[in-house]
Amino acid sequence: MSKHFVHVAVVALGLFVTSAGAETLKLPDNLTGFSSDAGENYFVESDAREAYFPLASNFLTQKTQSYCGVASIVMVLNALNVPAPSVPEFEPYRTFTQDNILDERTDVILARDVLAKKGMTLDQIGGILATQPVKAEVRHAADSSVEEFRKLASSYLSQPNHFVIVNYLRKAIGQEKGGHISPLAAYDGKADRFLILDVARYKYPPVWVKASELFDAMNTQDSDNENKTRGFVLVSAASVQ
Amino acid sequence: MSKHFVHVAVVALGLFVTSAGAETLKLPDNLTGFSSDAGENYFVESDAREAYFPLASNFLTQKTQSYCGVASIVMVLNALNVPAPSVPEFEPYRTFTQDNILDERTDVILARDVLAKKGMTLDQIGGILATQPVKAEVRHAADSSVEEFRKLASSYLSQPNHFVIVNYLRKAIGQEKGGHISPLAAYDGKADRFLILDVARYKYPPVWVKASELFDAMNTQDSDNENKTRGFVLVSAASVQ
Ligand SMILES: [Ca+2]
Ligand SMILES: [Ca+2]
Ligand SMILES: [Ca+2]
Ligand SMILES: [Ca+2]
Repeated sequence: MSKHFVHVAVVALGLFVTSAGAETLKLPDNLTGFSSDAGENYFVESDAREAYFPLASNFLTQKTQSYCGVASIVMVLNALNVPAPSVPEFEPYRTFTQDNILDERTDVILARDVLAKKGMTLDQIGGILATQPVKAEVRHAADSSVEEFRKLASSYLSQPNHFVIVNYLRKAIGQEKGGHISPLAAYDGKADRFLILDVARYKYPPVWVKASELFDAMNTQDSDNENKTRGFVLVSAASVQ
Repeated sequence: MSKHFVHVAVVALGLFVTSAGAETLKLPDNLTGFSSDAGENYFVESDAREAYFPLASNFLTQKTQSYCGVASIVMVLNALNVPAPSVPEFEPYRTFTQDNILDERTDVILARDVLAKKGMTLDQIGGILATQPVKAEVRHAADSSVEEFRKLASSYLSQPNHFVIVNYLRKAIGQEKGGHISPLAAYDGKADRFLILDVARYKYPPVWVKASELFDAMNTQDSDNENKTRGFVLVSAASVQ
């Protein structure tokens, strides 16, 4: 193939992808992208979006393909303004990163070499959050219901300093493919949809998903967690209820 | 100091910071934080926020204290869905990062060792964007006016695939302290304020700033750029006007 041909092909591809607006994977019809007209409307009409603003201010891409849980925890800790460790590059400023959140205390819960291979389970999210001055409640889907999830999660998302992390099976909502973790940021009651700020930003944009579909995707067994179901974690500042 | 005293002091500080919600620096009164009630209201009432959604989906923290320009460019390229290089950690997915945007073509415009020491100038933003299939127009504040800036920037922010990067002097808007670069994401005509998605997320949250104050902060001389004024860069997809 000539150099010239390659150049033309790359430019043509560039224009196509730009006009298609689709570097990330195509969304299935049941999911609504955040930047679509419908997605923007859900946001503007949403009833519970207090969590959105501090989370959006701290939205991250997971550092590796097994770090979705780490990125989700870091977003929530920074959104809560939990006193953060220092970062050499940012002295004298301090912030949580996907490196400095992991230490000898979190290694007891999930060793970094295991994390690198297998990612994080729902219970490990709770365990790692417990190493910080926050309150974290882990709920397996099998011990909850879509009604309880909708009520608790929408209530948390409507209050300052309250956050929700979800652990779900992607293929159950029509995405590629395995278990995944990300924070919720808003709930629109009219559409009965939650906004997931997906931390695999190289792969999918933030999406609005039906409460019942998200619950069903959490109500799946995780072979890395003794076949317990996935679920959600309710997180709040240690100083509030 | 006893270990016990240190522990109590750290916990007390933790609760104080949590309730004060202030790990980042305090904002001066002329700036409105994005997560404040007023900041949320500006967003909901804003006239021009088409740019916001794809930028928020790609919001980054600058990698080092000299990388504000790099982070801003990466956000805009990902928001535009410009065909991206591969990233070993994310195979088979592709995205721009603050590492892979820099190559032998950008080194001609701004060598990485100079970038590490001095950061990026307004003209270098334009030069680096020109290595990608996008249209970028550099406007020095001295060659523009607040009226023109308000009109052009608010028009760009209201259209899909149009973005604005600003280069301004922080101390002119009451912040600490030097020259800085970040993308704009929205404009609220009623308040006459622009939303800056500040990429130094360890230091400041996103803020709403008065158009005239932002213009004055751009209309300052940059000693790293032959004392030319700072200003703004209008960016759009190569395939659109
Ligand atoms: Ca849109
Ligand atoms: Ca913070
Ligand atoms: Ca708020
Ligand atoms: Ca993209």
